[in-house]
Amino acid sequence: MDDTDRMGEATSRYLDVRSLTEWFADPLGPEDQTVQSMPDVSPTKWHRAHVTWFFETFVLGPHVDGYRVHDPEFAFLFNSYYEAEGPRYPRPRRGMITRPGVSDIAAYRKHVDEAMVALIASAPSPELVELIELGLHHEQQHQELLLMDIKHVLSQNPASPRYQSGFAEFADVRSGPSRWLDFEGGLVKVGHAGDGFCFDNEQPRHQVFLEPFELADRLVTAGEWAAFIDDGGYERPELWLSDGWCAVQTDRWTAPLYWQRDGDTWSRFTLAGRHPVAGDEPVSHVSHYEADAFARWAGARLPTEFEWEYAVDTAPLIHQLFGDVWQWTSSAYLPYPRFRPAAGAVGEYNGKFMSNQLVLRGGCCATPPGHTRSTYRNFFPPASRWMFAGLRLARDA
Amino acid sequence: MDDTDRMGEATSRYLDVRSLTEWFADPLGPEDQTVQSMPDVSPTKWHRAHVTWFFETFVLGPHVDGYRVHDPEFAFLFNSYYEAEGPRYPRPRRGMITRPGVSDIAAYRKHVDEAMVALIASAPSPELVELIELGLHHEQQHQELLLMDIKHVLSQNPASPRYQSGFAEFADVRSGPSRWLDFEGGLVKVGHAGDGFCFDNEQPRHQVFLEPFELADRLVTAGEWAAFIDDGGYERPELWLSDGWCAVQTDRWTAPLYWQRDGDTWSRFTLAGRHPVAGDEPVSHVSHYEADAFARWAGARLPTEFEWEYAVDTAPLIHQLFGDVWQWTSSAYLPYPRFRPAAGAVGEYNGKFMSNQLVLRGGCCATPPGHTRSTYRNFFPPASRWMFAGLRLARDA
Amino acid sequence: MDDTDRMGEATSRYLDVRSLTEWFADPLGPEDQTVQSMPDVSPTKWHRAHVTWFFETFVLGPHVDGYRVHDPEFAFLFNSYYEAEGPRYPRPRRGMITRPGVSDIAAYRKHVDEAMVALIASAPSPELVELIELGLHHEQQHQELLLMDIKHVLSQNPASPRYQSGFAEFADVRSGPSRWLDFEGGLVKVGHAGDGFCFDNEQPRHQVFLEPFELADRLVTAGEWAAFIDDGGYERPELWLSDGWCAVQTDRWTAPLYWQRDGDTWSRFTLAGRHPVAGDEPVSHVSHYEADAFARWAGARLPTEFEWEYAVDTAPLIHQLFGDVWQWTSSAYLPYPRFRPAAGAVGEYNGKFMSNQLVLRGGCCATPPGHTRSTYRNFFPPASRWMFAGLRLARDA
Amino acid sequence: MDDTDRMGEATSRYLDVRSLTEWFADPLGPEDQTVQSMPDVSPTKWHRAHVTWFFETFVLGPHVDGYRVHDPEFAFLFNSYYEAEGPRYPRPRRGMITRPGVSDIAAYRKHVDEAMVALIASAPSPELVELIELGLHHEQQHQELLLMDIKHVLSQNPASPRYQSGFAEFADVRSGPSRWLDFEGGLVKVGHAGDGFCFDNEQPRHQVFLEPFELADRLVTAGEWAAFIDDGGYERPELWLSDGWCAVQTDRWTAPLYWQRDGDTWSRFTLAGRHPVAGDEPVSHVSHYEADAFARWAGARLPTEFEWEYAVDTAPLIHQLFGDVWQWTSSAYLPYPRFRPAAGAVGEYNGKFMSNQLVLRGGCCATPPGHTRSTYRNFFPPASRWMFAGLRLARDA
Repeated sequence: MDDTDRMGEATSRYLDVRSLTEWFADPLGPEDQTVQSMPDVSPTKWHRAHVTWFFETFVLGPHVDGYRVHDPEFAFLFNSYYEAEGPRYPRPRRGMITRPGVSDIAAYRKHVDEAMVALIASAPSPELVELIELGLHHEQQHQELLLMDIKHVLSQNPASPRYQSGFAEFADVRSGPSRWLDFEGGLVKVGHAGDGFCFDNEQPRHQVFLEPFELADRLVTAGEWAAFIDDGGYERPELWLSDGWCAVQTDRWTAPLYWQRDGDTWSRFTLAGRHPVAGDEPVSHVSHYEADAFARWAGARLPTEFEWEYAVDTAPLIHQLFGDVWQWTSSAYLPYPRFRPAAGAVGEYNGKFMSNQLVLRGGCCATPPGHTRSTYRNFFPPASRWMFAGLRLARDA
Repeated sequence: MDDTDRMGEATSRYLDVRSLTEWFADPLGPEDQTVQSMPDVSPTKWHRAHVTWFFETFVLGPHVDGYRVHDPEFAFLFNSYYEAEGPRYPRPRRGMITRPGVSDIAAYRKHVDEAMVALIASAPSPELVELIELGLHHEQQHQELLLMDIKHVLSQNPASPRYQSGFAEFADVRSGPSRWLDFEGGLVKVGHAGDGFCFDNEQPRHQVFLEPFELADRLVTAGEWAAFIDDGGYERPELWLSDGWCAVQTDRWTAPLYWQRDGDTWSRFTLAGRHPVAGDEPVSHVSHYEADAFARWAGARLPTEFEWEYAVDTAPLIHQLFGDVWQWTSSAYLPYPRFRPAAGAVGEYNGKFMSNQLVLRGGCCATPPGHTRSTYRNFFPPASRWMFAGLRLARDA
Repeated sequence: MDDTDRMGEATSRYLDVRSLTEWFADPLGPEDQTVQSMPDVSPTKWHRAHVTWFFETFVLGPHVDGYRVHDPEFAFLFNSYYEAEGPRYPRPRRGMITRPGVSDIAAYRKHVDEAMVALIASAPSPELVELIELGLHHEQQHQELLLMDIKHVLSQNPASPRYQSGFAEFADVRSGPSRWLDFEGGLVKVGHAGDGFCFDNEQPRHQVFLEPFELADRLVTAGEWAAFIDDGGYERPELWLSDGWCAVQTDRWTAPLYWQRDGDTWSRFTLAGRHPVAGDEPVSHVSHYEADAFARWAGARLPTEFEWEYAVDTAPLIHQLFGDVWQWTSSAYLPYPRFRPAAGAVGEYNGKFMSNQLVLRGGCCATPPGHTRSTYRNFFPPASRWMFAGLRLARDA
Repeated sequence: MDDTDRMGEATSRYLDVRSLTEWFADPLGPEDQTVQSMPDVSPTKWHRAHVTWFFETFVLGPHVDGYRVHDPEFAFLFNSYYEAEGPRYPRPRRGMITRPGVSDIAAYRKHVDEAMVALIASAPSPELVELIELGLHHEQQHQELLLMDIKHVLSQNPASPRYQSGFAEFADVRSGPSRWLDFEGGLVKVGHAGDGFCFDNEQPRHQVFLEPFELADRLVTAGEWAAFIDDGGYERPELWLSDGWCAVQTDRWTAPLYWQRDGDTWSRFTLAGRHPVAGDEPVSHVSHYEADAFARWAGARLPTEFEWEYAVDTAPLIHQLFGDVWQWTSSAYLPYPRFRPAAGAVGEYNGKFMSNQLVLRGGCCATPPGHTRSTYRNFFPPASRWMFAGLRLARDA
């Protein structure tokens, strides 16, 4: 492949990712794109601007001579958490900002895209190519956030409006019982290896010792979860971690987020509107506390993130890995031995969040194609429920 | 005037009020119209829908045979506080509702307006005419709320965006010293008399006994307020009511809402953007606690609502009454002797708010023409600052 | 009466008031005297120390040459709210202070009493005599607070411990129906007149105009309140002020404070332990919101504070005035025309609390003998319930 | 050793532990023993009662025929968190309970001790002996809590009262620089082995893989911490975990808990009153967030709990292990592989707290003699500071 081809391919890759964001925002009106339904959620138009700010701030500003910043006020509004990049508008107030509006943000994206395409065509250095790639992966993460956030926004509406009537929240729905897969464990290697892109938190590759264990070949289903509810799962403190039981009582959890009892049956709010719960679809929108309690009720446990990674890398018959729901593990989100954050402001990307969170592995219906992999470490606090998150059971051999 | 004329006039009156709401909303994009910046504030599009719901619920539904409700879900979304009309969406979450969007609400208004115009043309009963008039006064109140609310929404934006560059927040700016006007008092009559429209809380007309007093012929100015600040007004507990001093410390008040110190001078955020504070304009956006402390600092006091009404009705040389800022009085908002709320659901209009609020008299830049009068009783809690509220001094004779 | 007699009488008066405080504290152990069960409540030992600090700070320190302050740290701990007397320990944290303990505070009281007795014997100036009298009335107010506070403290204990088994919470329990007493009203005088002691807020005596009205000859009973509950009183928003309905829902009120349903009957926690509710005893521990809702349910209203005072001063057949429960009025606690706070730090006594409170008239079982009178203005926020407060109905003639 | 000796020894052991609790409470008056200064803290008298309830509930009640419960109400008041033992008084309200008072609790302890001594003399089964031993270790844990809690209670008092003037908060103060000790790591065994007592969370013993690392031979000192402060340690977000930086700002941390700047020097509140900070004493009362930030500032990191255990078990020249401050590790408090909680209600002891906490190793000045060991896992949330907690640095080899 010659240089021209390479540049063309890089340009396509850039534009593909960028236009997927717009495609995700497309069904949403200006009103939809403005609202923040809780502090964890960001407005759609904020996501669209923030990922653009990332390219402007870390790529164009420092690396393109004479680059003209689109609007100097945007740095304050669209910085998410990069302390090194200066002060920023407080996160829980993002939904207070009505201007720039959606058309202003479209103009911002266009301005940055033009500069980026020109930069990519100019044969940038390998370090810059790497940084652009980081920016694209960053944007893909926000594509997923955009979908889970807008689901939460729309769910506030008693009319259960639809994001898109054809949106399917599961890639793979499996009937029939689950099977236990056996793993011998021992001293194994985990973490990312090879040349492909990965985030800093997936490295260094290192050794961990695993006891023999078993892992379910499929995810826990909504039908199994309904049995847990029917068996008093949300009313029996002995099944729960202490903090989890406290959350059950404080937040009055009686079912997964978005579930609603309609007489004898359950329905749930989805990106395609409200629908009956199907027994064989994976359960989704459960917190770590709920996943942990379910596993205890089932006489099992959650896998560690290393058991999950090892199993996925070695077992041929394991299903529902990357396209349905993120899978809670029992592992705290902590740095790998000899972990080093990336240099500069992008070093704030992952490391500083390594407290009070748990690792989820896999991927979900909102994860953009090609974004995840077996070493990918997603992470959320144990009480979070607005992600597409479920679980897969493990047990000691 | 014959019937046709009367109907034509009533239709004009209806359409005038209705179109003023739209004219106020016109400078605002869909994003602007969706956001709620604090629980006291409602989104613009909510105001536009709620006043329409009022006509639909209290006029069209019960009084027009075969009236088709525009959308049955709207009753839940756009009921403000009428318990008798059933459950409603919680007030502090009004900014979470992205749909119906602004164009849906325009359609709702059109649907109701068509039915209302037809009804008005049908020579409705005097009771119904009265109810329609109440609906129009209700809509005028929301026109004022719309403006003060959107000011608060836009103020959240660090870029200080403008609602309308020509918007003037004061009708009458007076230079020169204020003068004390003398009033003898005695047993006087207050409250609404005559045939014109008034709210139930302005009645019955009744007697009160007033000691001799003096009232300033103009409002307290921003320049006087700056002197109060310079004299340590926000730092001296002896000037404040105990609850007021608590608010100063908890909310860190150091100046009126929307004021900002720029080196040696002050600027303030207005509906026309950020502007320098002019010394002779009336001070605005102060709470009752601040007004009370200022008066004490100035060796004066706030007038009672009855002193205010009596003075306004009798003194020819009193200025700045109805078009600049609402004027705090020292009177708690309580029912007049023998007060009776209106019958039915509209009886929830005023009486049930008679606790923890103080009366303001006059009117402001956002008050629609013809809406206020000398007996009009506006009311807000003593810590509220987002209204256009200032003060006029009084003292014992 | 010669000077010696006068001094002896003044000493007796001083020691009588002071020893009543100790008599009230006597049934309480050191643990009981230390705890603060909510921010409004103060620990018993704090009350005992604070009233002593008042004499030390306002009487002994400025007026007795060479007076030695008992402990310089006490000024910080036992100042309640006098800004002019310097910084003070935050009120909601009073229950965090374990030392000085009860025996240290007994020593403090002894130290101050000795100095006060010597001062009283030295023929102090009339101004000082007046200040001492204020100190004694202040201590009497805290005697009442001490009792209502310790009731709240003990009520936290699931074992319902007794303060004193013989304590009677009502002086006068009346069977039989209530009667309406008629009053003509007109221009009448209210406020304190004559030479006896009164607080600054009871003055100046002034004129108010009253419409004709009727007042019940006795208090509302617990039996009447139970009927209100049975008729859905706590579940019908149309009976409540808006803020009151909000309190019902937020704080889940279903009955007066301290009431508990035991099957078909009610019991209530008293200073003599838990006892069945007797139908003909006055209802107690209701908020202004509840009193107001009850009155509306009963087709009546609360009296204004002026109606109450006028009626009490003129009607011979009115019962249960000063020894059972404080009686909510519909009057906001505001300054009388031409009100002037006392000079100096004691001027912080009353005036600065004139916001967000309502006037109660009469007296209660915890009011020390000789402390109250017909012009006495007690005041509490409308949601407060831990005082001995009930109501008497009024209606328009 | 014959049976009589064994019984005598067991009785001595029991009475020794029980009397140490009383010895710790002895300097505290009834007022001191009653107060709860924050939800995490329990009153002294509650600790004294709760550890007694443990013996009554888990040992005497189920295992002694005809045992008479001292007071049936105590189960509700003194159950800490055992869901299986029924409802209990809410933890944050423990300081509201004035009765039973300290003398009642002394009687409770006597009642239970008599029954326990009789039981121990009766040659109980090995299972029961084990349960008694658990009760004694439980009581030792509360002895430590009693001291750290009362320190927090007394610190609320502006007079800085002393618990005991001779109380030494450090066993071992070391001057001079710290030295790095080298460890090879590899596949090593951790967790409790052998016959002695341990808690369930220290088991099973299992293998972990460690990379080569270095560990400091002593604790971080107060002098080093002062240098961190002087270098802007509390003002530089790049040193902090994101949640830690949030805590710094929300709670306005600028130094360890109990430190106070007096001009150019620091003092700190101790159980022996307020004293100047000595540069070579270990730093104490720092949160995990602070320890983590300090380590980053020092170019080092916290050790994992396994590095700590492995190093302590193998290095002869390592100092300040068990008697000064608990040492934060970077390890989340999680179950060991194949962890099984104990059966029955005592199974709620440890496992249900395995979320949102980090492991501390070692021991402190308040740890009773013989209570801790190298495999002991203490745990607290990352923002907690009221324990005697400091740190020891580690780094990658």
